Amino acid sequence: PDYRVAILTVSDTVASGMGPDRSGPRGVSVVNSASERLGGARVVTTAVVPDEIPKIMELLERWSDVDKMDLILTLGGTGFTPRDVTPEATKKVIQKETPGLLYVMMQESLKVTPFAMLSRSAAGIRGSTLIINMPGNPNAVAECMEALVPALKHALKQIKGDKREKHPRHI
Amino acid sequence: PDYRVAILTVSDTVASGMGPDRSGPRGVSVVNSASERLGGARVVTTAVVPDEIPKIMELLERWSDVDKMDLILTLGGTGFTPRDVTPEATKKVIQKETPGLLYVMMQESLKVTPFAMLSRSAAGIRGSTLIINMPGNPNAVAECMEALVPALKHALKQIKGDKREKHPRHI
Amino acid sequence: PDYRVAILTVSDTVASGMGPDRSGPRGVSVVNSASERLGGARVVTTAVVPDEIPKIMELLERWSDVDKMDLILTLGGTGFTPRDVTPEATKKVIQKETPGLLYVMMQESLKVTPFAMLSRSAAGIRGSTLIINMPGNPNAVAECMEALVPALKHALKQIKGDKREKHPRHI
Ligand code: NA
Repeated sequence: PDYRVAILTVSDTVASGMGPDRSGPRGVSVVNSASERLGGARVVTTAVVPDEIPKIMELLERWSDVDKMDLILTLGGTGFTPRDVTPEATKKVIQKETPGLLYVMMQESLKVTPFAMLSRSAAGIRGSTLIINMPGNPNAVAECMEALVPALKHALKQIKGDKREKHPRHI
Repeated sequence: PDYRVAILTVSDTVASGMGPDRSGPRGVSVVNSASERLGGARVVTTAVVPDEIPKIMELLERWSDVDKMDLILTLGGTGFTPRDVTPEATKKVIQKETPGLLYVMMQESLKVTPFAMLSRSAAGIRGSTLIINMPGNPNAVAECMEALVPALKHALKQIKGDKREKHPRHI
Repeated sequence: PDYRVAILTVSDTVASGMGPDRSGPRGVSVVNSASERLGGARVVTTAVVPDEIPKIMELLERWSDVDKMDLILTLGGTGFTPRDVTPEATKKVIQKETPGLLYVMMQESLKVTPFAMLSRSAAGIRGSTLIINMPGNPNAVAECMEALVPALKHALKQIKGDKREKHPRHI
Protein backbone atom coordinates (compact mmCIF):
# COMPACT_ATOMS: atom_id res chain seq x y z
CA PRO A 1 0.00 0.00 0.00
CA ASP A 2 0.98 3.61 -0.35
CA TYR A 3 -1.23 5.95 1.63
CA ARG A 4 -1.44 9.57 0.58
CA VAL A 5 -1.51 12.04 3.46
CA ALA A 6 -2.40 15.76 3.45
CA ILE A 7 -1.65 18.18 6.28
CA LEU A 8 -3.67 21.33 6.90
CA THR A 9 -2.33 24.00 9.24
CA VAL A 10 -5.23 26.05 10.59
CA SER A 11 -3.99 29.40 11.91
CA ASP A 12 -4.88 33.04 11.40
CA THR A 13 -1.33 34.02 12.29
CA VAL A 14 0.35 31.74 9.77
CA ALA A 15 -2.24 32.33 7.04
CA SER A 16 -1.76 36.10 7.29
CA GLY A 17 2.01 35.82 7.12
CA MET A 18 2.42 37.22 10.65
CA GLY A 19 4.26 34.14 11.92
CA PRO A 20 5.99 30.96 10.79
CA ASP A 21 4.24 27.59 10.48
CA ARG A 22 5.82 25.50 13.20
CA SER A 23 3.13 22.79 13.27
CA GLY A 24 2.97 21.90 9.58
CA PRO A 25 6.62 20.91 9.07
CA ARG A 26 6.52 18.94 12.32
CA GLY A 27 3.41 17.12 11.08
CA VAL A 28 5.17 16.22 7.81
CA SER A 29 8.17 14.93 9.69
CA VAL A 30 6.07 12.92 12.15
CA VAL A 31 4.09 11.19 9.39
CA ASN A 32 7.03 10.52 7.09
CA SER A 33 9.20 9.14 9.87
CA ALA A 34 6.37 6.76 10.85
CA SER A 35 5.80 5.87 7.19
CA GLU A 36 6.70 2.20 7.48
CA ARG A 37 4.56 1.63 10.59
CA LEU A 38 1.72 3.34 8.71
CA GLY A 39 1.83 0.94 5.77
CA GLY A 40 3.76 3.30 3.51
CA ALA A 41 2.00 6.58 4.29
CA ARG A 42 3.60 9.74 2.90
CA VAL A 43 2.66 13.42 3.01
CA VAL A 44 1.93 14.50 -0.56
CA THR A 45 0.43 17.94 0.05
CA THR A 46 0.15 20.65 2.71
CA ALA A 47 -1.73 23.93 3.03
CA VAL A 48 -2.43 26.74 5.46
CA VAL A 49 -5.86 28.31 6.05
CA PRO A 50 -7.13 30.91 8.55
CA ASP A 51 -9.48 29.91 11.40
CA GLU A 52 -12.62 30.16 9.28
CA ILE A 53 -15.16 27.35 8.89
CA PRO A 54 -15.82 27.74 5.11
CA LYS A 55 -12.10 27.79 4.26
CA ILE A 56 -11.37 24.75 6.40
CA MET A 57 -14.33 22.89 4.92
CA GLU A 58 -13.31 23.73 1.36
CA LEU A 59 -9.87 22.16 1.78
CA LEU A 60 -11.20 19.09 3.59
CA GLU A 61 -13.81 18.50 0.89
CA ARG A 62 -11.41 19.01 -2.03
CA TRP A 63 -8.73 16.78 -0.53
CA SER A 64 -11.31 14.05 0.21
CA ASP A 65 -13.57 14.16 -2.83
CA VAL A 66 -11.28 15.35 -5.65
CA ASP A 67 -7.73 14.51 -4.59
CA LYS A 68 -8.72 11.24 -2.88
CA MET A 69 -6.36 11.57 0.07
CA ASP A 70 -6.28 8.58 2.41
CA LEU A 71 -5.58 10.62 5.52
CA ILE A 72 -5.91 14.31 6.37
CA LEU A 73 -4.43 15.72 9.55
CA THR A 74 -5.48 19.20 10.62
CA LEU A 75 -3.20 21.06 13.02
CA GLY A 76 -4.54 23.82 15.27
CA GLY A 77 -7.85 25.54 15.99
CA THR A 78 -9.03 22.93 18.50
CA GLY A 79 -8.93 25.05 21.69
CA PHE A 80 -11.43 27.25 23.57
CA THR A 81 -10.77 30.68 22.03
CA PRO A 82 -13.50 32.33 19.94
CA ARG A 83 -11.49 31.77 16.73
CA ASP A 84 -11.01 28.02 17.34
CA VAL A 85 -13.44 26.34 14.92
CA THR A 86 -11.56 23.44 13.36
CA PRO A 87 -13.72 20.76 15.09
CA GLU A 88 -16.92 22.52 13.99
CA ALA A 89 -15.72 22.61 10.35
CA THR A 90 -14.62 18.98 10.55
CA LYS A 91 -17.95 17.76 11.97
CA LYS A 92 -19.71 19.39 9.02
CA VAL A 93 -17.75 17.36 6.46
CA ILE A 94 -17.38 13.92 8.06
CA GLN A 95 -19.98 11.25 7.37
CA LYS A 96 -18.99 8.84 10.15
CA GLU A 97 -17.46 9.65 13.53
CA THR A 98 -14.43 7.73 14.84
CA PRO A 99 -14.60 8.37 18.62
CA GLY A 100 -12.02 5.74 19.58
CA LEU A 101 -9.27 7.74 17.88
CA LEU A 102 -10.22 10.75 19.99
CA TYR A 103 -10.25 8.57 23.11
CA VAL A 104 -6.68 7.33 22.67
CA MET A 105 -5.34 10.76 21.71
CA MET A 106 -6.95 12.23 24.85
CA GLN A 107 -5.75 9.34 27.03
CA GLU A 108 -2.14 9.68 25.88
CA SER A 109 -2.08 13.51 25.80
CA LEU A 110 -3.36 13.70 29.39
CA LYS A 111 -0.30 11.72 30.46
CA VAL A 112 1.81 14.66 29.21
CA THR A 113 -0.26 17.60 30.48
CA PRO A 114 -3.68 18.29 32.04
CA PHE A 115 -4.15 21.05 29.44
CA ALA A 116 -4.87 18.23 27.00
CA MET A 117 -8.43 18.28 28.36
CA LEU A 118 -8.86 21.56 26.45
CA SER A 119 -8.50 19.86 23.08
CA ARG A 120 -11.87 19.73 21.33
CA SER A 121 -10.58 17.57 18.45
CA ALA A 122 -13.01 15.77 16.16
CA ALA A 123 -12.25 12.84 13.82
CA GLY A 124 -14.15 10.88 11.24
CA ILE A 125 -14.50 9.43 7.77
CA ARG A 126 -15.61 11.17 4.57
CA GLY A 127 -15.87 8.80 1.61
CA SER A 128 -12.62 6.87 1.78
CA THR A 129 -10.68 9.60 3.60
CA LEU A 130 -9.91 9.63 7.32
CA ILE A 131 -9.81 13.14 8.82
CA ILE A 132 -8.24 13.73 12.23
CA ASN A 133 -7.91 17.00 14.15
CA MET A 134 -4.74 17.51 16.15
CA PRO A 135 -3.73 20.44 18.35
CA GLY A 136 -1.51 23.15 16.90
CA ASN A 137 1.31 22.62 19.35
CA PRO A 138 4.18 20.93 17.47
CA ASN A 139 4.92 18.47 20.28
CA ALA A 140 1.28 17.48 20.54
CA VAL A 141 1.32 16.29 16.93
CA ALA A 142 3.98 13.71 17.72
CA GLU A 143 2.22 12.57 20.88
CA CYS A 144 -1.15 12.20 19.18
CA MET A 145 0.37 10.29 16.26
CA GLU A 146 2.12 7.94 18.69
CA ALA A 147 -1.27 7.16 20.27
CA LEU A 148 -2.78 6.30 16.88
CA VAL A 149 0.08 4.36 15.27
CA PRO A 150 -0.77 0.95 16.78
CA ALA A 151 -4.05 0.83 14.78
CA LEU A 152 -3.83 3.57 12.14
CA LYS A 153 -2.43 1.41 9.33
CA HIS A 154 -5.28 -0.99 9.98
CA ALA A 155 -7.79 1.88 9.90
CA LEU A 156 -6.51 3.04 6.51
CA LYS A 157 -6.80 -0.49 5.09
CA GLN A 158 -10.35 -0.87 6.38
CA ILE A 159 -11.48 2.44 4.90
CA LYS A 160 -10.35 1.22 1.47
CA GLY A 161 -12.75 -1.66 1.96
CA ASP A 162 -10.18 -4.41 2.33
CA LYS A 163 -12.32 -7.41 3.29
CA ARG A 164 -9.45 -9.34 4.82
CA GLU A 165 -9.17 -6.51 7.28
CA LYS A 166 -12.75 -6.70 8.38
CA HIS A 167 -12.76 -8.88 11.45
CA PRO A 168 -9.71 -8.46 13.62
CA ARG A 169 -10.31 -8.53 17.35
CA HIS A 170 -12.70 -5.84 18.59
CA ILE A 171 -13.81 -4.27 15.36
CA PRO B 1 -37.23 -7.67 37.86
CA ASP B 2 -36.99 -9.61 34.66
CA TYR B 3 -35.30 -7.67 31.87
CA ARG B 4 -36.00 -8.66 28.28
CA VAL B 5 -32.97 -8.57 26.01
CA ALA B 6 -32.77 -8.69 22.19
CA ILE B 7 -29.62 -9.36 20.19
CA LEU B 8 -29.14 -8.13 16.62
CA THR B 9 -26.30 -9.51 14.52
CA VAL B 10 -25.40 -7.01 11.81
CA SER B 11 -23.50 -8.74 9.01
CA ASP B 12 -23.82 -8.97 5.23
CA THR B 13 -22.08 -12.33 5.31
CA VAL B 14 -24.40 -13.93 7.86
CA ALA B 15 -27.56 -12.30 6.46
CA SER B 16 -26.82 -13.67 2.99
CA GLY B 17 -26.18 -17.18 4.27
CA MET B 18 -22.52 -17.07 3.22
CA GLY B 19 -21.20 -17.68 6.72
CA PRO B 20 -22.24 -18.74 10.22
CA ASP B 21 -23.28 -16.30 12.95
CA ARG B 22 -20.51 -16.59 15.51
CA SER B 23 -21.32 -13.36 17.35
CA GLY B 24 -25.02 -13.85 18.03
CA PRO B 25 -24.81 -17.14 19.96
CA ARG B 26 -21.88 -15.74 21.96
CA GLY B 27 -23.97 -12.67 22.81
CA VAL B 28 -26.84 -14.87 24.01
CA SER B 29 -24.50 -16.89 26.16
CA VAL B 30 -22.78 -13.81 27.62
CA VAL B 31 -26.08 -12.17 28.61
CA ASN B 32 -27.73 -15.29 29.99
CA SER B 33 -24.70 -16.30 32.03
CA ALA B 34 -24.62 -12.79 33.56
CA SER B 35 -28.39 -12.90 34.12
CA GLU B 36 -28.30 -12.72 37.90
CA ARG B 37 -25.81 -9.85 37.98
CA LEU B 38 -28.07 -8.06 35.46
CA GLY B 39 -31.16 -8.27 37.69
CA GLY B 40 -32.67 -11.22 35.87
CA ALA B 41 -31.96 -10.22 32.26
CA ARG B 42 -32.62 -12.87 29.63
CA VAL B 43 -32.34 -12.94 25.83
CA VAL B 44 -35.85 -13.37 24.43
CA THR B 45 -35.21 -12.72 20.75
CA THR B 46 -32.44 -12.54 18.17
CA ALA B 47 -32.20 -11.54 14.52
CA VAL B 48 -29.70 -11.04 11.73
CA VAL B 49 -29.70 -8.10 9.29
CA PRO B 50 -27.29 -7.00 6.55
CA ASP B 51 -25.15 -3.86 6.97
CA GLU B 52 -27.89 -1.50 5.77
CA ILE B 53 -29.10 1.51 7.74
CA PRO B 54 -32.86 1.12 7.02
CA LYS B 55 -32.87 -2.58 7.98
CA ILE B 56 -30.95 -1.95 11.20
CA MET B 57 -33.23 0.96 12.10
CA GLU B 58 -36.36 -1.07 11.43
CA LEU B 59 -35.37 -3.79 13.92
CA LEU B 60 -34.23 -1.31 16.57
CA GLU B 61 -37.49 0.65 16.30
CA ARG B 62 -39.73 -2.41 16.35
CA TRP B 63 -37.92 -3.99 19.29
CA SER B 64 -38.05 -0.70 21.22
CA ASP B 65 -41.50 0.66 20.39
CA VAL B 66 -43.59 -2.47 19.75
CA ASP B 67 -41.87 -5.30 21.59
CA LYS B 68 -40.79 -3.12 24.53
CA MET B 69 -37.36 -4.70 25.00
CA ASP B 70 -35.38 -3.43 27.98
CA LEU B 71 -32.00 -3.89 26.33
CA ILE B 72 -30.86 -4.33 22.74
CA LEU B 73 -27.31 -5.32 21.91
CA THR B 74 -26.15 -4.99 18.32
CA LEU B 75 -23.13 -7.04 17.26
CA GLY B 76 -20.96 -5.96 14.33
CA GLY B 77 -20.81 -3.16 11.79
CA THR B 78 -18.89 -0.76 14.06
CA GLY B 79 -15.57 -0.64 12.18
CA PHE B 80 -14.07 1.56 9.45
CA THR B 81 -15.05 -0.31 6.26
CA PRO B 82 -17.51 1.32 3.85
CA ARG B 83 -20.23 -1.18 4.82
CA ASP B 84 -19.93 -0.52 8.59
CA VAL B 85 -22.98 1.61 9.42
CA THR B 86 -24.38 0.24 12.68
CA PRO B 87 -23.46 3.37 14.72
CA GLU B 88 -25.04 5.64 12.10
CA ALA B 89 -28.30 3.63 12.21
CA THR B 90 -28.24 3.59 16.00
CA LYS B 91 -27.72 7.35 16.31
CA LYS B 92 -30.80 7.88 14.12
CA VAL B 93 -33.06 5.96 16.52
CA ILE B 94 -31.79 6.89 19.99
CA GLN B 95 -33.29 9.88 21.82
CA LYS B 96 -30.64 10.23 24.51
CA GLU B 97 -26.94 9.39 24.30
CA THR B 98 -25.19 7.36 27.02
CA PRO B 99 -21.51 8.25 26.52
CA GLY B 100 -20.29 6.75 29.80
CA LEU B 101 -21.13 3.26 28.56
CA LEU B 102 -18.97 3.87 25.50
CA TYR B 103 -16.18 5.21 27.70
CA VAL B 104 -15.96 2.08 29.86
CA MET B 105 -16.24 -0.29 26.89
CA MET B 106 -13.39 1.58 25.17
CA GLN B 107 -11.32 1.73 28.36
CA GLU B 108 -11.61 -2.01 28.98
CA SER B 109 -11.26 -3.06 25.33
CA LEU B 110 -8.05 -1.08 24.92
CA LYS B 111 -6.55 -3.17 27.72
CA VAL B 112 -6.99 -6.20 25.44
CA THR B 113 -5.92 -4.72 22.09
CA PRO B 114 -5.07 -1.34 20.53
CA PHE B 115 -7.41 -2.24 17.65
CA ALA B 116 -10.23 -1.40 20.06
CA MET B 117 -9.70 2.24 19.08
CA LEU B 118 -11.28 1.32 15.74
CA SER B 119 -14.65 0.63 17.33
CA ARG B 120 -17.11 3.38 16.45
CA SER B 121 -19.84 2.06 18.79
CA ALA B 122 -22.79 4.25 19.75
CA ALA B 123 -25.17 3.75 22.68
CA GLY B 124 -28.31 5.42 23.94
CA ILE B 125 -31.91 5.30 25.10
CA ARG B 126 -35.05 5.12 22.99
CA GLY B 127 -38.24 5.28 25.06
CA SER B 128 -37.56 2.77 27.83
CA THR B 129 -35.09 0.69 25.83
CA LEU B 130 -31.31 0.85 26.15
CA ILE B 131 -29.47 0.20 22.87
CA ILE B 132 -25.76 -0.61 22.88
CA ASN B 133 -23.48 -1.31 19.89
CA MET B 134 -20.81 -3.92 20.37
CA PRO B 135 -18.13 -5.10 17.93
CA GLY B 136 -18.77 -8.24 15.88
CA ASN B 137 -15.84 -10.14 17.28
CA PRO B 138 -17.21 -12.85 19.61
CA ASN B 139 -14.57 -12.23 22.29
CA ALA B 140 -15.23 -8.50 22.26
CA VAL B 141 -18.85 -9.10 23.26
CA ALA B 142 -17.77 -10.73 26.51
CA GLU B 143 -15.20 -8.05 27.23
CA CYS B 144 -17.63 -5.19 26.59
CA MET B 145 -20.32 -6.81 28.73
CA GLU B 146 -17.83 -7.26 31.56
CA ALA B 147 -17.11 -3.51 31.43
CA LEU B 148 -20.83 -2.68 31.71
CA VAL B 149 -21.97 -5.24 34.29
CA PRO B 150 -21.04 -3.18 37.40
CA ALA B 151 -23.71 -0.58 36.54
CA LEU B 152 -25.94 -2.13 33.85
CA LYS B 153 -28.59 -3.53 36.20
CA HIS B 154 -28.84 -0.09 37.75
CA ALA B 155 -29.16 1.49 34.30
CA LEU B 156 -32.05 -0.82 33.38
CA LYS B 157 -33.87 0.02 36.65
CA GLN B 158 -33.44 3.76 36.08
CA ILE B 159 -34.76 3.60 32.53
CA LYS B 160 -37.97 2.03 33.85
CA GLY B 161 -38.33 5.15 35.99
CA ASP B 162 -37.67 3.57 39.37
CA LYS B 163 -37.51 6.62 41.66
CA ARG B 164 -35.60 4.81 44.39
CA GLU B 165 -32.85 4.36 41.84
CA LYS B 166 -32.59 8.03 41.06
CA HIS B 167 -29.82 9.31 43.28
CA PRO B 168 -27.02 6.85 43.81
CA ARG B 169 -23.56 8.31 43.89
CA HIS B 170 -22.61 10.19 40.72
CA ILE B 171 -25.80 10.05 38.74
CA PRO C 1 -9.47 38.14 36.47
CA ASP C 2 -12.72 37.67 38.27
CA TYR C 3 -14.85 34.93 36.76
CA ARG C 4 -18.59 34.99 37.38
CA VAL C 5 -20.12 31.58 38.02
CA ALA C 6 -23.80 30.52 38.05
CA ILE C 7 -25.11 27.26 39.48
CA LEU C 8 -28.32 25.64 38.28
CA THR C 9 -29.89 22.84 40.32
CA VAL C 10 -32.07 20.71 38.05
CA SER C 11 -34.56 18.72 40.12
CA ASP C 12 -38.33 18.18 40.10
CA THR C 13 -38.21 17.44 43.82
CA VAL C 14 -36.40 20.62 44.79
CA ALA C 15 -38.28 22.82 42.31
CA SER C 16 -41.64 21.66 43.69
CA GLY C 17 -40.60 22.28 47.28
CA MET C 18 -40.82 18.55 48.15
CA GLY C 19 -37.19 18.33 49.26
CA PRO C 20 -34.15 20.42 50.12
CA ASP C 21 -31.46 21.41 47.60
CA ARG C 22 -28.42 19.51 48.77
CA SER C 23 -26.46 19.86 45.50
CA GLY C 24 -26.67 23.61 44.97
CA PRO C 25 -25.08 24.74 48.27
CA ARG C 26 -22.37 22.11 47.82
CA GLY C 27 -21.69 23.46 44.33
CA VAL C 28 -21.37 27.00 45.68
CA SER C 29 -18.97 25.85 48.37
CA VAL C 30 -16.87 23.79 45.95
CA VAL C 31 -16.45 26.69 43.50
CA ASN C 32 -15.80 29.37 46.10
CA SER C 33 -13.27 27.30 47.98
CA ALA C 34 -11.40 26.66 44.70
CA SER C 35 -11.69 30.35 43.79
CA GLU C 36 -8.00 31.12 43.79
CA ARG C 37 -7.08 28.05 41.71
CA LEU C 38 -9.82 29.11 39.28
CA GLY C 39 -8.34 32.57 38.70
CA GLY C 40 -10.75 34.34 41.05
CA ALA C 41 -14.01 32.56 40.16
CA ARG C 42 -16.98 33.24 42.40
CA VAL C 43 -20.60 32.07 42.39
CA VAL C 44 -22.77 35.13 41.79
CA THR C 45 -26.15 33.51 41.18
CA THR C 46 -28.01 30.23 41.68
CA ALA C 47 -31.40 28.89 40.63
CA VAL C 48 -33.51 25.75 40.73
CA VAL C 49 -35.57 24.43 37.81
CA PRO C 50 -37.59 21.24 37.29
CA ASP C 51 -36.40 18.51 34.89
CA GLU C 52 -37.92 20.17 31.82
CA ILE C 53 -35.96 21.01 28.66
CA PRO C 54 -37.50 24.46 27.98
CA LYS C 55 -36.97 25.66 31.58
CA ILE C 56 -33.36 24.46 31.62
CA MET C 57 -32.68 26.04 28.24
CA GLU C 58 -34.22 29.36 29.30
CA LEU C 59 -31.88 29.72 32.28
CA LEU C 60 -28.81 28.64 30.32
CA GLU C 61 -29.57 31.12 27.54
CA ARG C 62 -30.32 34.03 29.87
CA TRP C 63 -27.25 33.43 32.01
CA SER C 64 -25.06 33.17 28.87
CA ASP C 65 -26.50 35.84 26.59
CA VAL C 66 -27.88 38.46 28.99
CA ASP C 67 -26.03 38.03 32.27
CA LYS C 68 -22.69 37.15 30.59
CA MET C 69 -21.67 34.46 33.07
CA ASP C 70 -18.21 32.98 32.50
CA LEU C 71 -19.11 29.54 33.82
CA ILE C 72 -22.40 27.74 34.41
CA LEU C 73 -22.52 24.46 36.31
CA THR C 74 -25.73 22.44 36.16
CA LEU C 75 -26.30 19.90 38.91
CA GLY C 76 -28.56 16.88 38.36
CA GLY C 77 -30.69 15.42 35.60
CA THR C 78 -27.83 13.55 33.93
CA GLY C 79 -28.91 9.97 34.66
CA PHE C 80 -30.99 7.32 32.83
CA THR C 81 -34.51 7.98 34.23
CA PRO C 82 -37.21 9.28 31.88
CA ARG C 83 -37.13 12.72 33.59
CA ASP C 84 -33.34 13.15 33.17
CA VAL C 85 -32.96 15.65 30.32
CA THR C 86 -30.26 18.10 31.39
CA PRO C 87 -27.75 16.92 28.73
CA GLU C 88 -30.41 17.19 26.00
CA ALA C 89 -31.23 20.79 27.03
CA THR C 90 -27.53 21.63 27.24
CA LYS C 91 -26.73 20.24 23.79
CA LYS C 92 -29.46 22.47 22.34
CA VAL C 93 -27.83 25.65 23.66
CA ILE C 94 -24.10 25.04 23.25
CA GLN C 95 -22.35 26.13 20.05
CA LYS C 96 -19.12 24.19 20.55
CA GLU C 97 -18.59 20.90 22.36
CA THR C 98 -15.77 20.43 24.90
CA PRO C 99 -15.37 16.63 25.04
CA GLY C 100 -12.08 16.67 26.96
CA LEU C 101 -13.82 18.05 30.02
CA LEU C 102 -16.26 15.14 29.90
CA TYR C 103 -13.38 12.71 29.49
CA VAL C 104 -11.55 13.83 32.63
CA MET C 105 -14.74 14.00 34.72
CA MET C 106 -15.60 10.45 33.63
CA GLN C 107 -12.04 9.21 34.20
CA GLU C 108 -11.88 10.61 37.74
CA SER C 109 -15.46 9.70 38.70
CA LEU C 110 -14.94 6.08 37.65
CA LYS C 111 -12.12 5.87 40.19
CA VAL C 112 -14.75 6.52 42.90
CA THR C 113 -17.62 4.35 41.63
CA PRO C 114 -18.58 2.31 38.55
CA PHE C 115 -21.99 4.05 38.65
CA ALA C 116 -20.18 7.05 37.17
CA MET C 117 -20.62 5.35 33.78
CA LEU C 118 -24.31 6.30 34.08
CA SER C 119 -23.58 10.00 33.88
CA ARG C 120 -24.67 11.37 30.52
CA SER C 121 -23.15 14.83 31.13
CA ALA C 122 -22.63 17.24 28.25
CA ALA C 123 -20.37 20.31 28.20
CA GLY C 124 -19.65 23.11 25.79
CA ILE C 125 -19.34 26.78 24.96
CA ARG C 126 -22.09 29.29 24.19
CA GLY C 127 -20.76 32.72 23.24
CA SER C 128 -18.18 33.39 25.93
CA THR C 129 -19.81 31.14 28.54
CA LEU C 130 -18.64 27.63 29.44
CA ILE C 131 -21.49 25.29 30.44
CA ILE C 132 -20.75 22.02 32.23
CA ASN C 133 -23.22 19.37 33.41
CA MET C 134 -22.45 17.65 36.70
CA PRO C 135 -24.36 14.88 38.47
CA GLY C 136 -26.82 15.80 41.22
CA ASN C 137 -25.03 13.90 43.92
CA PRO C 138 -23.33 16.43 46.22
CA ASN C 139 -20.10 14.43 46.48
CA ALA C 140 -19.89 14.07 42.72
CA VAL C 141 -19.76 17.85 42.32
CA ALA C 142 -16.55 18.04 44.31
CA GLU C 143 -15.00 15.11 42.47
CA CYS C 144 -15.87 16.49 39.03
CA MET C 145 -14.53 19.95 39.93
CA GLU C 146 -11.29 18.40 41.17
CA ALA C 147 -10.86 16.73 37.76
CA LEU C 148 -11.32 20.06 35.95
CA VAL C 149 -9.33 22.40 38.19
CA PRO C 150 -5.90 21.75 36.60
CA ALA C 151 -7.06 23.35 33.32
CA LEU C 152 -10.31 25.20 34.09
CA LYS C 153 -8.75 28.61 34.81
CA HIS C 154 -6.95 28.30 31.51
CA ALA C 155 -10.21 27.38 29.75
CA LEU C 156 -11.95 30.48 31.14
CA LYS C 157 -9.10 32.72 29.97
CA GLN C 158 -9.17 31.22 26.46
CA ILE C 159 -12.93 31.67 26.11
CA LYS C 160 -12.49 35.40 26.78
CA GLY C 161 -10.19 35.41 23.77
CA ASP C 162 -6.94 36.03 25.61
CA LYS C 163 -4.36 35.68 22.84
CA ARG C 164 -1.49 35.02 25.20
CA GLU C 165 -3.39 31.94 26.28
CA LYS C 166 -3.70 30.58 22.78
CA HIS C 167 -0.82 28.17 22.40
CA PRO C 168 0.03 26.32 25.59
CA ARG C 169 1.02 22.72 25.13
CA HIS C 170 -1.65 20.57 23.46
CA ILE C 171 -4.28 23.13 22.64
NA1 NA D 1 -9.19 6.45 30.32
